[in-house]
Amino acid sequence: MLEEIHSPSDIKKLSIRELAALAEEMRAEIIKTVARHGGHLASNLGAVELTLALHYVFDCPEDKLVFDVGHQCYAHKMLTGRLQGLRDSLREEGGVSGFPRASESDCDAFTAGHASTAISAALGMARTRDVMGDDYHVVAVVGDGALTGGMCYEALNDAGQSETRMIVILNDNEMSISHNVGALSKYLTGLRQSRTYRALKRGVRRGLERIPGVGVPMFRFVEKFRDWLKTPFVDGKFFDALGFRYIGPLDGHDLKTLIRIFRRAREEKGPQILHVVTTKGKGYVPAESHPDTYHGVAPFLVETGELRGEKRVSCGHVAAAELAALAENDIRICAVTAAMPTGTGMEAFGKAYPKRFYDVGIAEEHAVTMAAGMAASGMKPYVAVYSTFLQRAFDQIATDVCINALPVTFLVDRAGLVGADGVTHQGVFDLGYFSMLPNMVVAAPRDVRDLKRLIRLSAEYDGPMAIRYPRDGEDLGARLEAHKPLRVGEWELLSEGEDVVFLAVGRMVQSAMNACIELMHHGVRAGVVDARFVKPMDEELLRASLKAPLLVTVEENVLSGGLGERVLSWLAENAPGHEALTLCVPDRFIEHASVASQLHACGLDARGLAASVLRRLGR
Amino acid sequence: MLEEIHSPSDIKKLSIRELAALAEEMRAEIIKTVARHGGHLASNLGAVELTLALHYVFDCPEDKLVFDVGHQCYAHKMLTGRLQGLRDSLREEGGVSGFPRASESDCDAFTAGHASTAISAALGMARTRDVMGDDYHVVAVVGDGALTGGMCYEALNDAGQSETRMIVILNDNEMSISHNVGALSKYLTGLRQSRTYRALKRGVRRGLERIPGVGVPMFRFVEKFRDWLKTPFVDGKFFDALGFRYIGPLDGHDLKTLIRIFRRAREEKGPQILHVVTTKGKGYVPAESHPDTYHGVAPFLVETGELRGEKRVSCGHVAAAELAALAENDIRICAVTAAMPTGTGMEAFGKAYPKRFYDVGIAEEHAVTMAAGMAASGMKPYVAVYSTFLQRAFDQIATDVCINALPVTFLVDRAGLVGADGVTHQGVFDLGYFSMLPNMVVAAPRDVRDLKRLIRLSAEYDGPMAIRYPRDGEDLGARLEAHKPLRVGEWELLSEGEDVVFLAVGRMVQSAMNACIELMHHGVRAGVVDARFVKPMDEELLRASLKAPLLVTVEENVLSGGLGERVLSWLAENAPGHEALTLCVPDRFIEHASVASQLHACGLDARGLAASVLRRLGR
Repeated sequence: MLEEIHSPSDIKKLSIRELAALAEEMRAEIIKTVARHGGHLASNLGAVELTLALHYVFDCPEDKLVFDVGHQCYAHKMLTGRLQGLRDSLREEGGVSGFPRASESDCDAFTAGHASTAISAALGMARTRDVMGDDYHVVAVVGDGALTGGMCYEALNDAGQSETRMIVILNDNEMSISHNVGALSKYLTGLRQSRTYRALKRGVRRGLERIPGVGVPMFRFVEKFRDWLKTPFVDGKFFDALGFRYIGPLDGHDLKTLIRIFRRAREEKGPQILHVVTTKGKGYVPAESHPDTYHGVAPFLVETGELRGEKRVSCGHVAAAELAALAENDIRICAVTAAMPTGTGMEAFGKAYPKRFYDVGIAEEHAVTMAAGMAASGMKPYVAVYSTFLQRAFDQIATDVCINALPVTFLVDRAGLVGADGVTHQGVFDLGYFSMLPNMVVAAPRDVRDLKRLIRLSAEYDGPMAIRYPRDGEDLGARLEAHKPLRVGEWELLSEGEDVVFLAVGRMVQSAMNACIELMHHGVRAGVVDARFVKPMDEELLRASLKAPLLVTVEENVLSGGLGERVLSWLAENAPGHEALTLCVPDRFIEHASVASQLHACGLDARGLAASVLRRLGR
Repeated sequence: MLEEIHSPSDIKKLSIRELAALAEEMRAEIIKTVARHGGHLASNLGAVELTLALHYVFDCPEDKLVFDVGHQCYAHKMLTGRLQGLRDSLREEGGVSGFPRASESDCDAFTAGHASTAISAALGMARTRDVMGDDYHVVAVVGDGALTGGMCYEALNDAGQSETRMIVILNDNEMSISHNVGALSKYLTGLRQSRTYRALKRGVRRGLERIPGVGVPMFRFVEKFRDWLKTPFVDGKFFDALGFRYIGPLDGHDLKTLIRIFRRAREEKGPQILHVVTTKGKGYVPAESHPDTYHGVAPFLVETGELRGEKRVSCGHVAAAELAALAENDIRICAVTAAMPTGTGMEAFGKAYPKRFYDVGIAEEHAVTMAAGMAASGMKPYVAVYSTFLQRAFDQIATDVCINALPVTFLVDRAGLVGADGVTHQGVFDLGYFSMLPNMVVAAPRDVRDLKRLIRLSAEYDGPMAIRYPRDGEDLGARLEAHKPLRVGEWELLSEGEDVVFLAVGRMVQSAMNACIELMHHGVRAGVVDARFVKPMDEELLRASLKAPLLVTVEENVLSGGLGERVLSWLAENAPGHEALTLCVPDRFIEHASVASQLHACGLDARGLAASVLRRLGR
């Protein structure tokens, strides 16, 4: 049946029974697609009926469906003409993105990727509609995890007072990416466990499944009863206080109820929140049993759920292990993460020191200022967040951490180019946004050995520090220098070069080393310095590098504010006229593809580096 | 009496009656001090009894008092040894800061300045206490305005589940800086207007004032009655849902009640929120009648409340007027601000177009993404926020606006050095944090004429743009070029220079022009280019400027990511070896002083610029 669906209008003629069958087909398709390409599985499986019901009732693209984050958008993409695209090329170069993208389809009302933005964007659209005198519906679909982000609350607070007509669907699967945290999560659990909701759900099931003869009339009775109740089964007092009409909880796999309630919601004025309870991983046993493991996955075998391909060393795990070792003798050391205990590897620290591990939810701003509060009162907190998500806390890093030079260390994971997650997830601004702040030390290890050394250094250092690294770590092997402890601002000369010296940082060190070999074939003698501190820089090694007539900086970051510009500034002051070439991520957003392909496209693989140098040298 | 108070312990021996008298003295002192130095008046007047009661019950610095923002910290500073400092040097160079500063006193548990951080910081301290096995109390004092910021909610959500012992004082004066917005504000109003609260408050008043004979026993009876009720007079369901024990509303000027409730709160376990109702501007008629006008004020005459000194042209007002003129013929134009309708001047736009004006509360993140949603659906939104506060929305600017190149224009007010508000309020990072983003146009006008032209340009431009300007505008006079419309990326040659060319941006253009005169006396022929676009740059004028052997960039921003580094990058690629000098705000936080003095300290006044150039030229 799925093959026949080319646009949302094609499902509007289907019966509930056909929709249910379609849901099963879509689920099988999601499992197959993610098994092949990797992607977000558990959350997408949970949102199939919800998505069907939305498209059954609302009319895309006239009505605006705004998906938060987009870990639940695959079903939506299937229904809006991208089935073949998903099958062929999900998250692959030139293929369908894993997130909603306005540039991909009219039906993707807003590009997403970072959590908690949908209600704000939807409110903007609803207000546009009101100013323009249009009449369309605006629906934001938000996970219960995303609801831990403060932006959601800011938007609810604004929308609730404005009395703008809009619908927020709270897709509550009792999880964010990992087990959900926070008081509101408890509160939602309370709603889900309310006697009325359970009784109704049980009643409907019994009615339909157990007593086929009596089932239908009983179901109708329950329906009428619901109508009579005008649907708020339980007291949504939290949302009431925010000016929203609360309706729920609703069984998110019961198509008939969803459609009925959505139809009624379409007729209401003012802001409404529909609390829809779904099961993460629904329909695929491994994902249903371990929804956090199957949140975002690499390609796997459908039969067993087993991951294909080798597992690489994760920098996060290395960092967590090193931190746990240090924490044994230092009660001040603690770790903070924002709903990413698994992704950042910090759950290992949490297992070792549960009382010194804080998962605050998708709340990067709070995470940073709470850590600042800890540091101000004597702790030594480590905040482990992905580079792209830490952008959320730029102001808190500047104002709450840096002004008082508090000893908060940032473990900046997924830095640089990130591959298949693509444009919204690239960690290519952090060298700039950290380096511009006074009192901040900014470091990036070239491999996991150096990462350990940097973590040990940070434990001794009494001030703000950022250590940025990609997901997968390499071990470039022991060197003599690796045995002595690091000092802040200390670079390392890896090989001498008479014509060119690469000043490379992070995993670009390896690229630069390989580029030297390439250049050697062209008669260019190039050396490499591991410029592991972007701030402060090693002025001694910088000065020594001036022996070569051309300095080449290499970083997995945009130029602005990064290593390259810092070196240029130093040269302008200390060695005016000395030539330099700055290689970096270009000034455009980088789409999804493999990391290797992205590096290649940016000219940051060994061959690209060598070619840029040869071009500059006129060869 | 106030003269005898050198530390909080000095007030602990006082009777309630003496405390009340002290409160009046403190209020008079606050009025006098702010009248002399300028500062935050209305909010500070409202928090006098609250602060006295806090210091009466809690023991600073052992117990941690964390003030949010700090618009209510003057009374606290008076009680903690800074009375003379306030009188002599509030907000002046080398003097007492207008905000809590950890570096200023042990009793300032956390440095503040940006809203909504106190609960996060306090939770960090409470958790530190628990890990370390200490026993102190942690109290966060948060205004109802700051509660519109999402961080507060993130922190409440985390604290509410953790069951950490901490106290949040909600200082509810029915205002943020301007009239408070949002659904929660309505909800708080509901609590304040609850019959029980009003009856009790009336009862107490009557008891004490009207019937002197019967008053005392009646008061005692009411007190007993309250005790029996265990204080939650009304249903604090919003805070309940977040896991907080809600107590209130309490009359924030009734010292006896406050002290009694604080004492009891000290004995409780777990997180509590005490809802304290205060009157902004309390005790000073002009401030009580116009609390928004007297929120932050320049020096004024105590007798009349009249402002002293001349009023300068505000860039925000110019921008708002120009925008309103454009909006007349363009229904797509709308304005968004984050609790700063007065400060940004946008209230004028709001008066002209109330349906296209959105004050979203202290919620910069939501403001930006909502604007992105508007732009995605056909509006042309202008987001007017102070440079320093817009740091809060860096991620939303990057992810929600820039990835899709949506036509959102940022009116970045209070850019550059801001004077008396000092270290937490400097707008010296925005050129960097905007310029690093692909698709972003970054501009700064040299005066109000150019500001108008940039606003007109932005209305035509279909993409993200930032226009940054200081509070006070100058009018440098008409030039021929000023009559033709601007193009994106177009600089302007103001005067030719054979030895040196200044590339100056924003109000540094004026400094550079003056520096040219200074340099002329030393035989240096310097010219000036108004580099009003930091991104993209005017490569034609840049190339033409190479006729002079030294380029000097001048910007009111840190070096990182700003004009200077961008010019160096261009030179490295297009004119290797050409010399350049980058003048900018140094890599350290700049404390409060006058703007002139801050510019001087940064070497950014005309004399400083000239001196730097002469030094570089070896003269």
